[in-house]
Amino acid sequence: MTTVKAEILAVGDELLYGQTLDTNSHYISGEMDKIGVRVVRRSTVGDNEADILKAFAEAESRADIVLISGGLGPTSDDLTKPCLAKYFGCGIRIHEEALKEVTEFFRKRGRELTELNRQQAALPECCEKITNPLGTAPGMWFDRNGKVFVSMPGVPHEMVHMVQHEVIPRIRRRFTLPVIAHQMIRTAGIGESFLAEKIAPWEESLPPHIHLAYLPSEAGVKLRLTAFGDDPEKIRREFEALCQSILPYAGPYIFGFTDDPLEVVLGKMLIEKGLTLSAAESCTGGHVSHTITSVPGSSAYFLGSVVAYANAIKIKALGVNSDTLAQYGAVSEQTVAEMAIGVRQRFGTDIGVATSGIAGPDGGTPEKPVGTIWIACADRNGVETRKLHFASARLVNIKLTTTSVLNLVRLRIKKGVKD
Amino acid sequence: MTTVKAEILAVGDELLYGQTLDTNSHYISGEMDKIGVRVVRRSTVGDNEADILKAFAEAESRADIVLISGGLGPTSDDLTKPCLAKYFGCGIRIHEEALKEVTEFFRKRGRELTELNRQQAALPECCEKITNPLGTAPGMWFDRNGKVFVSMPGVPHEMVHMVQHEVIPRIRRRFTLPVIAHQMIRTAGIGESFLAEKIAPWEESLPPHIHLAYLPSEAGVKLRLTAFGDDPEKIRREFEALCQSILPYAGPYIFGFTDDPLEVVLGKMLIEKGLTLSAAESCTGGHVSHTITSVPGSSAYFLGSVVAYANAIKIKALGVNSDTLAQYGAVSEQTVAEMAIGVRQRFGTDIGVATSGIAGPDGGTPEKPVGTIWIACADRNGVETRKLHFASARLVNIKLTTTSVLNLVRLRIKKGVKD
Repeated sequence: MTTVKAEILAVGDELLYGQTLDTNSHYISGEMDKIGVRVVRRSTVGDNEADILKAFAEAESRADIVLISGGLGPTSDDLTKPCLAKYFGCGIRIHEEALKEVTEFFRKRGRELTELNRQQAALPECCEKITNPLGTAPGMWFDRNGKVFVSMPGVPHEMVHMVQHEVIPRIRRRFTLPVIAHQMIRTAGIGESFLAEKIAPWEESLPPHIHLAYLPSEAGVKLRLTAFGDDPEKIRREFEALCQSILPYAGPYIFGFTDDPLEVVLGKMLIEKGLTLSAAESCTGGHVSHTITSVPGSSAYFLGSVVAYANAIKIKALGVNSDTLAQYGAVSEQTVAEMAIGVRQRFGTDIGVATSGIAGPDGGTPEKPVGTIWIACADRNGVETRKLHFASARLVNIKLTTTSVLNLVRLRIKKGVKD
Repeated sequence: MTTVKAEILAVGDELLYGQTLDTNSHYISGEMDKIGVRVVRRSTVGDNEADILKAFAEAESRADIVLISGGLGPTSDDLTKPCLAKYFGCGIRIHEEALKEVTEFFRKRGRELTELNRQQAALPECCEKITNPLGTAPGMWFDRNGKVFVSMPGVPHEMVHMVQHEVIPRIRRRFTLPVIAHQMIRTAGIGESFLAEKIAPWEESLPPHIHLAYLPSEAGVKLRLTAFGDDPEKIRREFEALCQSILPYAGPYIFGFTDDPLEVVLGKMLIEKGLTLSAAESCTGGHVSHTITSVPGSSAYFLGSVVAYANAIKIKALGVNSDTLAQYGAVSEQTVAEMAIGVRQRFGTDIGVATSGIAGPDGGTPEKPVGTIWIACADRNGVETRKLHFASARLVNIKLTTTSVLNLVRLRIKKGVKD
């Protein structure tokens, strides 16, 4: 089987000038890798016709598929569409279906269609339109001399939706791809190098056709197994065995074997056990609640929270004892425990969690340096606390704390909250 | 003055396969932009000799400076150094000063120098060594036929240190750089195409040496002016005039002329006016609070919030009337107004804001489709509400709502909260 090669092209001055971080190319890379398309090059060019046209020609010489993001907006600095029309030698005209879609998009939002927006429905005559239900710029699919060009909007969520629902299915139909399989092993509560040490014997036991990657983030370290082969059933059995054989090395840190993040796994556990949750947040400032409620349907188990930034709110809205605050301070085991107990009681939930710490960059002391954080989880059996220490930037500390507190709830539920 | 052009080249399979997000190229882009070097292309290639050599030649044909990160590790898949030696046609041998540095690096950490590490001190004979005090791989500087190649390690903090302390000073000495300047104009509460229509006459008045870019995101549309010239003072005056002349077209939407996001601008306004803020969040589920508290020092004006996901919490923790909920529903002007008034009163703040809506993907009805969102802002003078309609993905709806509610507070403060 011949390898199908892809080149990823991002268009935009804002990328070249370092004002916008290009996460699109990264996302598209990962998605192509998953389906067995080999990315051979990534390029970024500015909003400049000559540069864009040259990049098209170079990409076509190297790859079977050219995946382009950006430059589809309605304004004069958006050049991808006219460049594609020029490159493929065809005119641009209003695409009736696209016009219907963009008109409907604006009608639904109770807004009038401007002439600029109307022009977004104009497409090169030699392309197939790719529907963009989340935005006004349709995608484009060109197929000539065995090479495919795909143009997608630069707005990340529009691009992601298009890749998932349109681009990947079309690539699968258009090309013969090798059998490639992935297995996720999701962990939380342990850093990359510590995890690597723990699972070293397991990693050494991997057969040569299975490759392991460590993908660390604030939401935990993902382990991803990738296998190439001809027999999907054999790979499936091998993955199954590996998901079992890693447990003796890292069992307590593993929260799932799918790509579901911790908040989704936790949500499923809460629904399954019929449990409700509330939160009392100090240093995380709403990020724990935001993460929980980022899951559709979370209202089934999450009743709400109090973000108690000020001590007065900790006392008034959560019932924390003012003596506790005076004696131990806001960043203490005693305070965080009272916060968790307080929110559980006042909100009438099965579980109450709490965070209190110094997210930084200021506010640290010699005894409690920046990154000192207490978390707690209360249920009918009592309250469990943990002291964390992170030494990163404010936002990273906040996100790491969120992962830790969600993992604390997960472990607590596994032990049995209602037993 | 001739423009000095740069190309940025990142080397590594982990980038092409979507395992590691390439923040290096983004950082180097921004730093080059700041000193007036024009980045004309960014490319990423894998750990493959032929691809790397081709990328070198292409980059040299387009740019005066080629900035390479990655591929300097001690293992066999790190190919940047042998490729550079081949490209410049010279041998590789141990660099005595580099060997001293790497030996010292290991000695300080109480570790022995392995043969692999020793080889990191071997450099192409035709380059100048660039010191890397934070790691074991030195950087390299090649200068041939008026073109400069710079090779830097892929480890981000090592690369950043090298750019700041070695690469930028060398580039400044080696090239004559033009004056380049940027001016940000930050907006909220208006989409890209509507903004473009409103400011069209202003945009048409821009002189040819000033370029305008639209940078839309959930946090609002950024307008960025870029000017090239010889006279920084003249550019500064032009920018100043343009920041004034845009006001008649888009004044109410403009919240700032720096890169500060809305939550930072709002925080400064609250501090300046001595005002405090609290929030009652339903559909945003904590994201408003998270955004406000992402700003260091926000505890000076943000006391806290109630995330009232369940109706029972809206009643109990915010004092929303159960009749209001029964008659109008949770997603209504009446409910969101009572939420804002309730949190302001209970938390004792000058301003209380609230959100209630259907973030999606489920929960919509014909009368209240997904994306129907009410926001409110209460102060001593009363409560102001707005109905929003977004039809994006859940997380985008949440983020757009956050921007809208922060902007509502900003406009409210501008009118005068305490007057």
